[in-house]
Amino acid sequence: MVRLKVTATHFQYTVAVGRGAWGGLRSLATGDYSSMFALTEAGLWHRWGREFLRASGLRLSRVIYVPAGERSKSLAQVEKTAARLAALGADRHSLLVAFGGGVVGDLAGFVASVYMRGIDYVQVPTTIVAQVDSSIGGKTAVDVEKAKNLVGTFYPPRIVLAEPTVLRSLPDRVFRSGLYEVVKHAILSGPLFFDLLERRLATLQPNRTAVIEPLIARAARVKVEIVNRDEKEADLRRVLNLGHTYGHAIEAATDYRRFLHGEAVGWGLLGVTRLAARLGVLPDDEAARIARLVWQVGPLPSMADLSPSRVLSLLGHDKKAVGGRVHWVLPERIGKVRIASDVPADAVARAFRSLQRAEI
Amino acid sequence: MVRLKVTATHFQYTVAVGRGAWGGLRSLATGDYSSMFALTEAGLWHRWGREFLRASGLRLSRVIYVPAGERSKSLAQVEKTAARLAALGADRHSLLVAFGGGVVGDLAGFVASVYMRGIDYVQVPTTIVAQVDSSIGGKTAVDVEKAKNLVGTFYPPRIVLAEPTVLRSLPDRVFRSGLYEVVKHAILSGPLFFDLLERRLATLQPNRTAVIEPLIARAARVKVEIVNRDEKEADLRRVLNLGHTYGHAIEAATDYRRFLHGEAVGWGLLGVTRLAARLGVLPDDEAARIARLVWQVGPLPSMADLSPSRVLSLLGHDKKAVGGRVHWVLPERIGKVRIASDVPADAVARAFRSLQRAEI
Repeated sequence: MVRLKVTATHFQYTVAVGRGAWGGLRSLATGDYSSMFALTEAGLWHRWGREFLRASGLRLSRVIYVPAGERSKSLAQVEKTAARLAALGADRHSLLVAFGGGVVGDLAGFVASVYMRGIDYVQVPTTIVAQVDSSIGGKTAVDVEKAKNLVGTFYPPRIVLAEPTVLRSLPDRVFRSGLYEVVKHAILSGPLFFDLLERRLATLQPNRTAVIEPLIARAARVKVEIVNRDEKEADLRRVLNLGHTYGHAIEAATDYRRFLHGEAVGWGLLGVTRLAARLGVLPDDEAARIARLVWQVGPLPSMADLSPSRVLSLLGHDKKAVGGRVHWVLPERIGKVRIASDVPADAVARAFRSLQRAEI
Repeated sequence: MVRLKVTATHFQYTVAVGRGAWGGLRSLATGDYSSMFALTEAGLWHRWGREFLRASGLRLSRVIYVPAGERSKSLAQVEKTAARLAALGADRHSLLVAFGGGVVGDLAGFVASVYMRGIDYVQVPTTIVAQVDSSIGGKTAVDVEKAKNLVGTFYPPRIVLAEPTVLRSLPDRVFRSGLYEVVKHAILSGPLFFDLLERRLATLQPNRTAVIEPLIARAARVKVEIVNRDEKEADLRRVLNLGHTYGHAIEAATDYRRFLHGEAVGWGLLGVTRLAARLGVLPDDEAARIARLVWQVGPLPSMADLSPSRVLSLLGHDKKAVGGRVHWVLPERIGKVRIASDVPADAVARAFRSLQRAEI
């Protein structure tokens, strides 16, 4: 098990990654809380709840279930959850445990940040995306209408506990979807991690915990290091948006129904790689290597039928846009990206259309 | 005009109180914002908007209206407002101006704290309660079901601008309602302010700006001083809850329909004064002086018909309760209060019932 430290100006916390991570909860003085609640999805909890409680030694007051899926990341669900917490007697000294994937983590983190103006919470991520990315960094959010993560807070958890054993119960598609984020982290990290991932990718399966563990730990470290250099995304943290600009637009254009988030990021990585290569920012051989690794993860749901104008019109809606400008994260080589706010709209459009055509 | 400084660990801002306060916006580099929006109520804006824009020199992109009344302090309204901001192109570098009373201020502050994980905002309070209390201190909140302020954030404004001229358009009842909070501040402050208020109260009218101005400034200073000593209410800031424990329960028991917030605080002050006197914490003559000043503000809507058991059952629901315990703020004398978490429930009940009987 690896222990990483997130250190920011006003707080710090541990990200424990690896088999046995749940035991890390014993290092938290949980006896000081007036009550403790888990927020999770019913199916997931029924599969892993007992094991989690045994390994963590946690004595929960109650488990609160939210429906599975992105639709739970809503202010309506925040309201329901807050009302439920209040009805169950949660007060300012209660602890909330986010046990689940990115949706549960983002929702629980947001609820914790606003319930009675802020209570402590713990992230127990149970998907790859959550373990290597969304549970780390203290960003919480819910969606408003079609605007993903429009409303949220910066609110650090007390601890993050990523146990890779739990990935065993992931459906294959969800598991693969998470790997696109690992690919993203490898591109950001550099040749060492990228090479390793190229060699290991074919061997990754949900139940091969020992093989997955070091890759998850490595990918989580990439996130921790970026967060430590820039806690508020003003600048450096923007690089994490690699693959997400096209990705968010593709998700929005399909009402978040066709693609899992990671799959949209997979398309986004292919798109931005093509864009960077065409702009002459990224050498062709590096672009080909990135594209090969993305495709090696598995097949992606088609986007050949999407209206390019619809997708392109949604690019500017990303909340990272400032004054209507889109900040592109362009790979320059494996291990280096550049932020560009002056990418010509027609280059963006052409790269997208050529990616669509390549599919057919 | 008085300029007060709120200084906390991680931020500081100015509270300008008095005629000409709106001009204080010129000290903010508003040119740095990508766009600026006001959140307000239509009737209020139609009366004062033009004057505010002239005095402040502000160039707004757009005005967003919310319905008047406590019901706007909801997550549904947060969602509507965030969606509207997004549709109008607000980004991370936009400014939100809260132009209104406590409802608008609490809502706008909360929206600002979570929109794209936080944008700058300015408080322009237009009621007495907002000018001397709710706009100062960086607490934002909305209600969830019947739980008032259950969800919120600590999020400081960039500046607070309290212009007493705007109080002219307050309906008499709303004006008087705000004075109960001024009485509360005078009790917390001490004999100097309390004596002054006793002498001046009868002369206070919405349109007598010159008479109101120094009292508003003085009451705002009480709030600023308390906030500066304790930004997160862990302890010291709790004293501001004086009169609010019975008050919130009385409001909740009447579904927030019968009493204006200040009126409930008026009853709450009478209740807690009686309670403190009966517990032997507050001398009878001081209790009589406080009660006299509260009654001097004006008549209060009756609460003789309220079910005592209903009101008393709602006391524990206050979010300041920890582990089910209610922390009472008991006056010991004018200028001094004590926090007590061990007040016997039957004393609380008897004080409340005797207050009800006194009305008949």
